[in-house]
Amino acid sequence: MITIDDVARKAGVSIATVSRVLNNLENVSEKTKMKVWKAIEELNYKPKILASALARHKKKFKVGICESDRLIKMEKENISPEFYSVILTFLEKIGEEYGIEFCKTKLLTPIECDGYILVGGDTTKETVKYYKDIKKPFLLLDHYIPGEKVNCIVTNGYDGAYYATNYLIKKGFRRIFHIHGPLNSYGFKGRFEGYTTAMHQANLLPKYYEYDDVKDNMEDVIEFMIKKDGIPEAIFASNDITAMRVIRELKKRNFKIPEDVSIIGFDDILSAKEFEPPLTTLKVFKDEMGSLTAKRMYELLIGHDTHPVMISLFTKFIKRKSSI
Amino acid sequence: MITIDDVARKAGVSIATVSRVLNNLENVSEKTKMKVWKAIEELNYKPKILASALARHKKKFKVGICESDRLIKMEKENISPEFYSVILTFLEKIGEEYGIEFCKTKLLTPIECDGYILVGGDTTKETVKYYKDIKKPFLLLDHYIPGEKVNCIVTNGYDGAYYATNYLIKKGFRRIFHIHGPLNSYGFKGRFEGYTTAMHQANLLPKYYEYDDVKDNMEDVIEFMIKKDGIPEAIFASNDITAMRVIRELKKRNFKIPEDVSIIGFDDILSAKEFEPPLTTLKVFKDEMGSLTAKRMYELLIGHDTHPVMISLFTKFIKRKSSI
Repeated sequence: MITIDDVARKAGVSIATVSRVLNNLENVSEKTKMKVWKAIEELNYKPKILASALARHKKKFKVGICESDRLIKMEKENISPEFYSVILTFLEKIGEEYGIEFCKTKLLTPIECDGYILVGGDTTKETVKYYKDIKKPFLLLDHYIPGEKVNCIVTNGYDGAYYATNYLIKKGFRRIFHIHGPLNSYGFKGRFEGYTTAMHQANLLPKYYEYDDVKDNMEDVIEFMIKKDGIPEAIFASNDITAMRVIRELKKRNFKIPEDVSIIGFDDILSAKEFEPPLTTLKVFKDEMGSLTAKRMYELLIGHDTHPVMISLFTKFIKRKSSI
Repeated sequence: MITIDDVARKAGVSIATVSRVLNNLENVSEKTKMKVWKAIEELNYKPKILASALARHKKKFKVGICESDRLIKMEKENISPEFYSVILTFLEKIGEEYGIEFCKTKLLTPIECDGYILVGGDTTKETVKYYKDIKKPFLLLDHYIPGEKVNCIVTNGYDGAYYATNYLIKKGFRRIFHIHGPLNSYGFKGRFEGYTTAMHQANLLPKYYEYDDVKDNMEDVIEFMIKKDGIPEAIFASNDITAMRVIRELKKRNFKIPEDVSIIGFDDILSAKEFEPPLTTLKVFKDEMGSLTAKRMYELLIGHDTHPVMISLFTKFIKRKSSI
């Protein structure tokens, strides 16, 4: 029989750490949690705590994780796989404890489920109407549409971006540019507004450029930026993937990071720490985002506190070497 | 022995309704829930479900409900007792199920507890720092301070006010005034911004007047408003108490509501429906606000998903006779 010792050995962590992960306690890094869950899966370990939790919540629910074609394309092309895959890992683990089974399905043509989690920024007003008409619980993960009253779990992009921009201003920078994803995404829009508000308050001119992971080429964006507005002292990018590509393009042009240009990302994806130079970024607590999503979905499924709420997670500024 | 039948009889509701309340299920009005809890308390009924829930969460926590001197003064003078007392009733009932005991204490000089709930809009940056230094879990109820990363449960005032203002604009009104509470309160500020944004978008001039429940006299505010800007076609007030006082003052001056002036409030306190004329308002789900606060506090106490989040409840527009 597989025991907790086997899991600890395989994951290369202490038994206490495995126990902390199983009990969803604080002070365990996302990376460690991922290792532990991977070991549990590979060993097919069935911890008692999960078994008893499952017994408590006898009813089994089936919940669809609804992804847009755009997101599926990104996953296939391995463009931005980390962010959502980490969130969904924790969503599934915590959901399991509440008797929820998940299955992946398409945003616009979902299979029949007891509830739906609409992932990412591609959900439109029309999509929301479609799900409202189904009359099953649903919530938006990492997105919100102003004017709609729907359950959603988002990151407080405004607060994080405002903090990062002010950080750069306090360092004495004046030419701080912003490279952002499509602004129909609530996440990118909040960060955009946090950046522009901080710039306006400091009497600095905001300069921003759209970069769409799926359609655009970073080389073109950087070339356009330099031709039009010159070289900035710092760039705040609206996610880590964008920040990494900005750094690559600037390095190609022989700029030194952070000596010539300071760069700040957003998300703190797993590879942000290993990047060269390691990324200064706003950490999104993806584990807790997944966990809170699972718990909120459970409440909706059992009919507790069902009036729509927005749950917005604050980020944490992580200083690394891509910025001074 | 007291049974569920006794509770149902005393509360004047069906047994099924008592059961729905005990299980915190949807489709029970706040008023009915209040009646049921009152009957339970008066009969000292100990439902099995609560007993088993208590057994499950053996650990007993003591949580302080921290009120400002201003709020205590308002309660004593019976100025705005309904809103928070309803929230706190549900907070205590649901908290009990999680093994939480509550005690009232003062915001600036709290007694020692395992966690703290800071009630209302009087919490300042300095107060937040004081509670951070205590290093015990705390959360802000019905308030948030921009730039602070703290757990908080708020109402989406922006969304509600934006909706109400647009409702009045669509009715053909142009002279829509706003009477609001002190803007250091996050709740009033969000409503203020929802109102001004809707007015600006419609190319209408926002006209607003501060009214502080504790310090100001509504007679003076209305007199000043009429002298300065004349009679509006509609007034959006930032809570129901304010709306009721506006109506009283306008009636004294022989204006007919809603024929001469349409009035919209915010909160849907228990007396809003019985007022003459019954108030059109934005309903805040105070029961769910209390319940979500209790659950979030429990998570913080046991160390689950502890990074700060804002939980923001959407409101619902309720059309009654104080507006066309």
